[in-house]
Formats: sequence, structure tokens, C-alpha cells
Amino acid sequence: MKKDLGVKPYLFPMPTYMIGTYNEDGSVDEMMMAWGGICAEDMVALNLEADHKTVANLRARGAFTLAVPGRDTMEASDFFGIASANKVPDKFERAGLHAVKSERVDAPVVEEYPLTLECVVERIEDEPYGLRVLGRIVNVLADERVLDEKGRVDAGKLDTFLFDQMRNGYYAVGEQIGKAWNAGAGLMKK
Amino acid sequence: MKKDLGVKPYLFPMPTYMIGTYNEDGSVDEMMMAWGGICAEDMVALNLEADHKTVANLRARGAFTLAVPGRDTMEASDFFGIASANKVPDKFERAGLHAVKSERVDAPVVEEYPLTLECVVERIEDEPYGLRVLGRIVNVLADERVLDEKGRVDAGKLDTFLFDQMRNGYYAVGEQIGKAWNAGAGLMKK
Repeated sequence: MKKDLGVKPYLFPMPTYMIGTYNEDGSVDEMMMAWGGICAEDMVALNLEADHKTVANLRARGAFTLAVPGRDTMEASDFFGIASANKVPDKFERAGLHAVKSERVDAPVVEEYPLTLECVVERIEDEPYGLRVLGRIVNVLADERVLDEKGRVDAGKLDTFLFDQMRNGYYAVGEQIGKAWNAGAGLMKK
Repeated sequence: MKKDLGVKPYLFPMPTYMIGTYNEDGSVDEMMMAWGGICAEDMVALNLEADHKTVANLRARGAFTLAVPGRDTMEASDFFGIASANKVPDKFERAGLHAVKSERVDAPVVEEYPLTLECVVERIEDEPYGLRVLGRIVNVLADERVLDEKGRVDAGKLDTFLFDQMRNGYYAVGEQIGKAWNAGAGLMKK
């Protein structure tokens, strides 16, 4: 039996991706986003509200990083989603994380985040439904500790967390339970 | 120590959302997607390759469903990602799932999927990087078995699975480990 819930932005899982930019004074800003992600082999799309400090920074610097946070930074990363740099200008410093400048783009790389995409702003679009930022990936940075013996990122080792928009929860990632483009291969032969 | 991995579409988690459409003969097509999702309170964005049967169906019918699959349908759902309806026209039937027509849009609702967004096509855009479908959510359908005592969707009860694009894996969802806009609230007072 299915129930009607009306018009709601309900899908799961949603990610907790972290957008890193520089403020005008060179200090670091990080915000958490859940709406958007990869949109092509070398592109990301971020759906944001126009009044975020991040958006002003993206316009000014034309670059950002997009990172996957580990569970060990859940408190700081959630705080980056609560606090606006418009009101708490020292938010990054307050959270106790550390950043260095990307070697490729004009944006900060947070040392504690295990996976980071270095991106340049390709286009900022004012959509009828909100603002969309298209970014081009110029490099991916991964901590050695999250790589497997073949040098590939082991998703489980990222130890990240999922966002539940329906009840505002964070969930852990469970065990690997199958292989993509493989779990259903038996049905091809049927 | 961070390693450069080059230009890769690497983020995690990615979802396994299922797009449901009708073929021209009224049979059901389902495909799995990972690039896209919610882009506004009442909108979804799907980043797809233009040659999918789904895209032809979206153009012809102007409607689709977007569902979250449970782990109990991982085999069928993965198969929907492997098999193209251009080559395996009876793919939905072959997988053994069941669908009824949505009461609101011209698209199928898969009975086995616990959470389904009923959507109309708002716009189809040919972007330089690929095709983007913008859909407007007209209703959300949820199985009663995934609702909590207050009638809200319990993300854990969806028992869905995550897509890992880096090593082509599926992961289970773990336990709830925090509350969003709350886990970092202590830092606001600091």
C-alpha cells in the first residue's frame, strides 16, 4: 500500500559534499551541499541558493574544491552547513580543520578530507528554480590511506556519511553487497 | 599524503535511482541512473546519455517516475542498468517486477520500489557535456512499511544501496550516526 506524501524533495541517499572556496581576505570557507554532484565525466553541478557566501566566492575566484568528508569530521562538516560565513566569518578556523592552497585552482584543499575534486567554474546559471554552478574537474586528490593495492579509491575507506533529507539524519555507509553492472548479469542470459 | 588521480568523476556516495517510463507500445522501461537527483524543492535533474531508450520515452510522453530501489531488488535494478530497452525490449518483464500506471503522470510506478517520485518533464536540454532532463515533482509515493509512527519516511527502512563509481560496487546503508544541522551545533556557541 503506497501513501501520497505530496510534493517533497525526497530521495535517498543524498551526499554530504563539501564546497571549499576562498573569501576575499584569503580566509577559507567551507559549506555542505546535498543537491548536485557529478553531471558528466569531467563536470560537476552544484544547486545552491544565491545568497550563500560560497556563491560570492565562486563568482570572485572562479574556482572551488568539492570534497567527500570522513565521519571523523562530521561535527565540523555539519557546522559548516549550519554557520554562514556571512555571519560567522571565522567559521573554518573555529572548526579546527586545516587547509592548504590547491596547486591547480584558486581554492583551499582541506587536509582532513580524504577525497577532493579541484574544479574551475565553467558557468553560473540563474535558473527559474535557483542557481546552478557548473564546474570542470581538473584533478582528483585522494589520501593514500583510502587507496587499495591497485591505487584505486576504496569507497568504504572514505568512511563518509549520507544525508537524509526526510528526517534530517546522517547515516553511515555499510558493507559492500554487490558489484555494479554485474549483480543483474544473470538476467541477461535468461 | 594526497595523490593525484587526474580527471575522474569520483564522488561518493552516488545513488542508484530508477527512472520509469513507458515505451511507445505501452510496455514499461526502467533504467538506473547515478548522476543527478534533487535540484530544487520540487525539481529533479537527470544527466543522461542521449541515446537511451528512456530519453526517447521522456520526449514522447513528457513524464517519468524516479524511484529509490530496495536492496531486495538489487539484481533486477542492476539488470535495468545493464540491459538497454533498445536491445532487450522485454527487459522489465524479464526481471519479474510489477508496475501499475501512475494516477498522476503518464509513467509506471513499480510496486516493489518503496519510494517513488511522480514527475513531469519540464525541459530537456542539450548541454555541451550531455543531455539534462529537468523534471517537476507532482507527488511522492511511499510504501507504508517505510514510514515511521509520524508518517515520515524512515531512510533506514528503505534499505537501499549506494553506487560506487570508482570500483563499480554497491554498498549497503549503515546505521544512523547523527542529526543534520545538529551534529555541529556545539561549535556555534564556541
